[in-house]
Amino acid sequence: MKCKRCKALAAIALPSHHTGFCPECFLKYFSDQVARGIHKHKLFSHEDRILVALSGGKDSLALMQVLSELEYDVAGLHIDLGIGESSEAARGFVENFCSKRGFTLHIVRTAEHGLAIPDVKAVVKRPICSVCGKIKRHYFNRFAHENGFTAVATGHNLDDECARLFANTLRWDSRYLGSQGPALPGEGKFVRKVKPLYRLTEFETAAYCFLKKVEHGKAPCPYSGGASFTGHKRLMGDLEHKSPGMKIQFYEGFLRDGRPAFAAACREGADALMECAKCGFPSAAEVCGVCRTRDMTAAGMIGR
Amino acid sequence: MKCKRCKALAAIALPSHHTGFCPECFLKYFSDQVARGIHKHKLFSHEDRILVALSGGKDSLALMQVLSELEYDVAGLHIDLGIGESSEAARGFVENFCSKRGFTLHIVRTAEHGLAIPDVKAVVKRPICSVCGKIKRHYFNRFAHENGFTAVATGHNLDDECARLFANTLRWDSRYLGSQGPALPGEGKFVRKVKPLYRLTEFETAAYCFLKKVEHGKAPCPYSGGASFTGHKRLMGDLEHKSPGMKIQFYEGFLRDGRPAFAAACREGADALMECAKCGFPSAAEVCGVCRTRDMTAAGMIGR
Repeated sequence: MKCKRCKALAAIALPSHHTGFCPECFLKYFSDQVARGIHKHKLFSHEDRILVALSGGKDSLALMQVLSELEYDVAGLHIDLGIGESSEAARGFVENFCSKRGFTLHIVRTAEHGLAIPDVKAVVKRPICSVCGKIKRHYFNRFAHENGFTAVATGHNLDDECARLFANTLRWDSRYLGSQGPALPGEGKFVRKVKPLYRLTEFETAAYCFLKKVEHGKAPCPYSGGASFTGHKRLMGDLEHKSPGMKIQFYEGFLRDGRPAFAAACREGADALMECAKCGFPSAAEVCGVCRTRDMTAAGMIGR
Repeated sequence: MKCKRCKALAAIALPSHHTGFCPECFLKYFSDQVARGIHKHKLFSHEDRILVALSGGKDSLALMQVLSELEYDVAGLHIDLGIGESSEAARGFVENFCSKRGFTLHIVRTAEHGLAIPDVKAVVKRPICSVCGKIKRHYFNRFAHENGFTAVATGHNLDDECARLFANTLRWDSRYLGSQGPALPGEGKFVRKVKPLYRLTEFETAAYCFLKKVEHGKAPCPYSGGASFTGHKRLMGDLEHKSPGMKIQFYEGFLRDGRPAFAAACREGADALMECAKCGFPSAAEVCGVCRTRDMTAAGMIGR
């Protein structure tokens, strides 16, 4: 196969685009897809100050790299969850990546806020992944708000988004179907959330990191029991194999025709948000879930 | 495993209901599910005159049998498509079934209306299945309207409906998503369409026919290249295997939360229907698709 752009020998086949690229043109394609997504859904502009959530995995590091090359104003935030060697390794990848490339990196240690994940896990009854996700989202948003960032960018890719959309669709969860997408507008103390990699697959972000010599973590979290939505991702992969281009059509079709239909229902049934009596950030209850988890964890530590 | 109802030895396992039944109690369960679906979505009442579309396959014959046992006012209509031995065999199953049980049976031969499917297939360029489907729907509706039936019932089962819903969802096809369901209301010369087996799987209608000693056709149409939506049905089957009850939840969840969201968009964009200048039945164009196909087929026959 020849590269679609320069006719050199293709190194990376992209069946969903009925094409293939040489390494150099693949990097151009990758960057163009990100730029196209940012433009299409007006994710942010060059005036924005963007906080990139850096977990240490391929997607988040690829995101930081490509946004920087597209000359956006970016800084990284890594949340150290305090899960022993796993968190140390993740942090190592992020620090190494940022120092080599001269990127600004901020670090929040949840342990310093009474929320080391192993301590939280010991006291909460719900699945730890959902609690941990809530804590991470809280600190990404809070750090962005308190430090003047105008958008929080995460590395969610097309496979993540399709699998989540499929899960939401199987349940016809109007609330999520009315708001899922590459941009969640900011409001009050909620900073705008964006997903600039939504048009690119896991395969593509992995290839990007490989070509850019980005060293990244590959081990899943020891608490997660493997990657999320594995079954749905495999299923979407099978459909994509049969109908190349299906994933992006499913997702863009949803944004065009699906989400608007649910957004109306969503607005009608939206819960009013108040400010948490403890931390002052948006909350559906008097005290937000993160502050309640912190209190439970503190009580649990005393009890031990 | 013991029968859920009578504690005898279970013969039929139903993982999606976390249960199993002996033959007698399975028949009761089957009938109850049909009654529940009719009641839940107000499909029809004992005052209605119901025309049951009988293809000769397991679903349509099971439907006729169970509606008759539930004491609804039913008559069968078989459409003879004129596809050689295949159509003769299908008609044989229907005639045999109805005569043995004393059911009223009407037959429409499309060949008598200039629409023998082999002749149509020789002239149309589109996939024959979609043209044939349109012809069948036209004559089911027309026969019902001209003979005072108040509802047309088809044997679509849960697997058919889930696979179709899944296909419509992958494309986010608002028009279909706004109207798919077990009841399509009547309007003008459109007679109400209903799918009373929508809560029962293919496995269940096959088991019902087996226990009721209903002999039915098993061969797919020679033109179809196999059953429709095979890939989507397998995929739904895999999901059901992992999460028993998923299929009915997906479908009922759609009816509750998905369809209403699309119905609004659907009403706004609905094309006005006129009456076909030739046959007088509802049409989106001056002459309906069936009359145009008939004209094309007649021209093609002369040309040969």
